Amino acid sequence: MKAQIYNDTIVALATPAGNGAIAVIRLSGAQAIDFAASQFKSVSGKQLHKQATHTIHLGHIVDKNRTIDEVLVSVFKNPNSYTGENVVEISCHGSLYIQQEIIQLFLKKGCRMASAGEFTLRAFLNGKLDLSQAEAVADLIASDNEASHQIAMQQMRGGFSSEIAKLREELLNFASLIELELDFAEEDVEFADRSQFKALIARINFVLKRLIDSFAVGNVIKNGIPVAIVGEPNVGKSTLLNALLNEERAIVSEIAGTTRDTIEDEISVGGIGFRFIDTAGIRDTEDIVESIGIKKTFEKIEQAQVVIYLLDAAVTSSTVEKSQSVIVEIEKIKNRFPQKQLLVILNKIDHITDSDLANLTSNLVPHASNLIPISAKTGFGIERLTTKLLDLINTGALRNNETIVTNSRHYDALLKAFEEVQKVHYGLETDLSGDLLAIDIRQALYHFGEITGEITNDDLLGNIFANFCIGK
Amino acid sequence: MKAQIYNDTIVALATPAGNGAIAVIRLSGAQAIDFAASQFKSVSGKQLHKQATHTIHLGHIVDKNRTIDEVLVSVFKNPNSYTGENVVEISCHGSLYIQQEIIQLFLKKGCRMASAGEFTLRAFLNGKLDLSQAEAVADLIASDNEASHQIAMQQMRGGFSSEIAKLREELLNFASLIELELDFAEEDVEFADRSQFKALIARINFVLKRLIDSFAVGNVIKNGIPVAIVGEPNVGKSTLLNALLNEERAIVSEIAGTTRDTIEDEISVGGIGFRFIDTAGIRDTEDIVESIGIKKTFEKIEQAQVVIYLLDAAVTSSTVEKSQSVIVEIEKIKNRFPQKQLLVILNKIDHITDSDLANLTSNLVPHASNLIPISAKTGFGIERLTTKLLDLINTGALRNNETIVTNSRHYDALLKAFEEVQKVHYGLETDLSGDLLAIDIRQALYHFGEITGEITNDDLLGNIFANFCIGK
Repeated sequence: MKAQIYNDTIVALATPAGNGAIAVIRLSGAQAIDFAASQFKSVSGKQLHKQATHTIHLGHIVDKNRTIDEVLVSVFKNPNSYTGENVVEISCHGSLYIQQEIIQLFLKKGCRMASAGEFTLRAFLNGKLDLSQAEAVADLIASDNEASHQIAMQQMRGGFSSEIAKLREELLNFASLIELELDFAEEDVEFADRSQFKALIARINFVLKRLIDSFAVGNVIKNGIPVAIVGEPNVGKSTLLNALLNEERAIVSEIAGTTRDTIEDEISVGGIGFRFIDTAGIRDTEDIVESIGIKKTFEKIEQAQVVIYLLDAAVTSSTVEKSQSVIVEIEKIKNRFPQKQLLVILNKIDHITDSDLANLTSNLVPHASNLIPISAKTGFGIERLTTKLLDLINTGALRNNETIVTNSRHYDALLKAFEEVQKVHYGLETDLSGDLLAIDIRQALYHFGEITGEITNDDLLGNIFANFCIGK
Repeated sequence: MKAQIYNDTIVALATPAGNGAIAVIRLSGAQAIDFAASQFKSVSGKQLHKQATHTIHLGHIVDKNRTIDEVLVSVFKNPNSYTGENVVEISCHGSLYIQQEIIQLFLKKGCRMASAGEFTLRAFLNGKLDLSQAEAVADLIASDNEASHQIAMQQMRGGFSSEIAKLREELLNFASLIELELDFAEEDVEFADRSQFKALIARINFVLKRLIDSFAVGNVIKNGIPVAIVGEPNVGKSTLLNALLNEERAIVSEIAGTTRDTIEDEISVGGIGFRFIDTAGIRDTEDIVESIGIKKTFEKIEQAQVVIYLLDAAVTSSTVEKSQSVIVEIEKIKNRFPQKQLLVILNKIDHITDSDLANLTSNLVPHASNLIPISAKTGFGIERLTTKLLDLINTGALRNNETIVTNSRHYDALLKAFEEVQKVHYGLETDLSGDLLAIDIRQALYHFGEITGEITNDDLLGNIFANFCIGK
């Protein structure tokens, strides 16, 4: 696969579609600099071919006598570029029209429109990145909170790859020794020290187990931790989410002009993405329409990892019946979903007296071990809630900067490798012959190789890079 | 104004908001390189300060021990940059999260978020662009067809400015001579040759007139030429617009993934933007609801410059009554809107026989001087229609590459300058005294100066640059 040569030059928009101050169009391929040079008139009269790598040149993109735009052209020379090929980046004015005209011009001259992820595919094929690093590029772009960013960054910088590569190399050494034994089979020598080998296998087992276990947290971190908010209208769901959002110093809106309309959205709390799922209340009813609503609420809770039961403290403490019915609901959730983490939150405590709050709390505490009084409006208790939410997720590995597996392809390969390593372990315990041991070791090595891309095929690559955006 | 010094360093996202392969964050100011250097770890260990202008460096943006992203940093040194100050462009992975983290980091370190258009404002204040060139930058980014792009490009490259500057300089020469005469008033000398001056004023008059007249076409080109399509449902409006769109080789959808749902949209025909406005038919009726519809149609036609009356040839030729009622409608439009350009288009001619078409055409031609038979489905006649549409717009100036005024601020200033030049002209004819002539000339010069920015004030600049996007 690595020997595959691309003769053509690809072109694509590298920045998001839309109008902005500038846009960047990227060309990669052996002829990238030639293509750019043929359509570029430098202000200073310089020849693009003759310029050093990593230099920037001011000029105009021209099509015969027509000037399309004043641009800055950045030149990167093989192998010192993202793809490892010659690369040119054209920074033009950010009009959609100009972007299209420039891309069309290069297509007309013989470049090809890049397919999704093709720049990164070429980087992989040219040995600039291994496969798990290439996959991390897509994760990095998709990351929208500190935790998923940190994991993707570590993976892109090769943390995961080097961990796998180290295991693979040690295993490979032993495999070679065992295969050497086979060549000298009649002499009954043992090049590979079995006790050292057993220790190695135990260590590999341990590391694989840790990586496989990390996927549980990695997967939720990557996709956001689902939190169902059970609460009737007007208990303050939106205010709560905005309060949580404000805890982050995010200046989202200032930069991107984003606004948050829906409550069913992902927001970052303490650097970790939480997906909040809005549900209705679940009070007892004989009304058919309402019971359909309750069924839906239960379905949504089913998808969640954490359940927040949000209450209006003023309403709940208003009558004995109210607080009783709340206790019934809490017990219902606990019975039906014993596995879920339940948080009971008393909102609007600024609307009731301290003694009412004390009474309410003492009524509820026996039923709700995680009870947090807050005022989403004033911000009281929000920090305690944030801390609690993060406690519910096992973020130890994240804090300790350990490798966390987030990619299900890697998870599958690790599971298969683990299975083979178990066979090797069993083989060693039972004094299995070297040739049979060698087969299992080769299988384990194969699955390690799948992760970093030493072993691959076109289908696999196609699947992986199809998920990238065009221009990456 | 030009002496104004900015001591702070500004930062903003320069590429469109959203996820993409890469995003570019721009810093400008005396300390831009220092700020970048303090948060940048070069892969090769190079110091950013010591690097030459227009060079690119691979490394990581770090906040203490935390790595935010692997980036390319481009260094531009004062005065060789867009703003004329030190500029750094950071090309990072295109995740919204990463963009925000990097911008926040620099804000935390003491940079200031750039206000709308502030990079270009600084470029103007540092003498890199004059005001009309700066305004052209915004027009260029907003341009979405060949014509508006061409005009903005020419203006940005200084075509308009140099035309104004030349007039201004010649007028300034004469003003100086006349003011010199005032110093020698008692000696009754005449430094400024009055006949040469008259010739100059005539020339300036001519050029101003041409520029002022060009605004009529410039304005529609910039905003798109409004075309009302009068036609009942199913006469083929959408098919027609798609056929016009296909005439352009645009690969819009391939690049930006755009789709066209609505008929009320701007499309580019022959490089010029047309805004198509959908209306209903206008047949006679006594139904109140329908007559409201007709009123709306008339209101929409009022806004248009061109009216396309689109007919289904098969339906129109089916009965004598049908074709008669069409003629009534055509006459109604002509009577009510004698100033509008009317195009009658017979669509779906592939559904009728040649002799039916000949009959229908000979019936309609006496009433419709611009009658075009087409089949939007097969593409027949579309090219003729395109040519006709372009003929209706006076695009001569565009084809001849003459300066076209598109900016209403420029138009106002030109009108005012023209008025003052008229006064100078009158003064010369009536042998007005030098000191009074000088006042009118100074006024004309003032308005010329307003266009290029020799004369300006904070309010004016505020208004102009507030229309820019942040990051430009």
